[in-house]
Amino acid sequence: MEWKVEKAIQDEYPAEFAWCYGCGHLNEEGHHFRTGWHQNGTQTITFFTPKAAHTALPGFVYGGMIASLIDCHGTGSASLALHRKNGHELGEGAEPPRFVTASLRVDFIKPTPHGVPLKAIGTVTEIHPKKWKVDSEIFANEQLCARGEVVAVVMPKTFLTKE
Amino acid sequence: MEWKVEKAIQDEYPAEFAWCYGCGHLNEEGHHFRTGWHQNGTQTITFFTPKAAHTALPGFVYGGMIASLIDCHGTGSASLALHRKNGHELGEGAEPPRFVTASLRVDFIKPTPHGVPLKAIGTVTEIHPKKWKVDSEIFANEQLCARGEVVAVVMPKTFLTKE
Repeated sequence: MEWKVEKAIQDEYPAEFAWCYGCGHLNEEGHHFRTGWHQNGTQTITFFTPKAAHTALPGFVYGGMIASLIDCHGTGSASLALHRKNGHELGEGAEPPRFVTASLRVDFIKPTPHGVPLKAIGTVTEIHPKKWKVDSEIFANEQLCARGEVVAVVMPKTFLTKE
Repeated sequence: MEWKVEKAIQDEYPAEFAWCYGCGHLNEEGHHFRTGWHQNGTQTITFFTPKAAHTALPGFVYGGMIASLIDCHGTGSASLALHRKNGHELGEGAEPPRFVTASLRVDFIKPTPHGVPLKAIGTVTEIHPKKWKVDSEIFANEQLCARGEVVAVVMPKTFLTKE
């Protein structure tokens, strides 16, 4: 298995939206989460290997890191789905829609082992044209460690004007 | 207002529990969240000033950072409450109980401005002797920006043996 998403929605966010600490490609200190379609199907995928410091206790991944992964995997997945609904696929050059998180829920199923890549798999549901739900499962060593739910909404234009 | 918690529960976690990326005092790269009683009352408080990189967009705080703050503020608050129920206060030298997060929920009320200290205020409820709920409100510039709920459980001993 290749632990890399080939085409990621975050690579195509325009520069003003590329500063997210979780997934912005211009944020040098950030996590650089990258989310794409899973096996060209209808689910989405993000990989992430936590750094040495990202522990809860030695040997286990910090829960806030898993929450962060679920958050950006959620907004990225919603963007992928709306982009496709709008008739676009990655690599075409069309600007993808950008979402913000309205709510985030994480259920920690079992302690997540540190030192292996994590895999987030997402299932996207349209609630409303501007509001999408992403259910995620987080795997380490192919074991389900956490479940997440993100409700993401199309970013209001006011975000860029700091109103 | 002093943006510092005088006595924090995390300062008293024993060394083996002090490696959390969010709140472990031994994790050099971590956030060092510190949670104490709010004005010596029954609510809890944690302050955090996000770093320059912790943005969602320029000018706004990254949601995963807020989720992380709510997570550790939740486990720390639960620990404070059970410690008190057990007859102990901070500074006495008794070892506090350590919690892990079972579930985390964040509702993002409004965009959180970057560049100012954040304040988390927690209200702790006992669900079961080993399971506590912490409702949190996150303020920036005294404005409510997010609400959180953490269900925290007393850490199983297996965590330290990496089972």
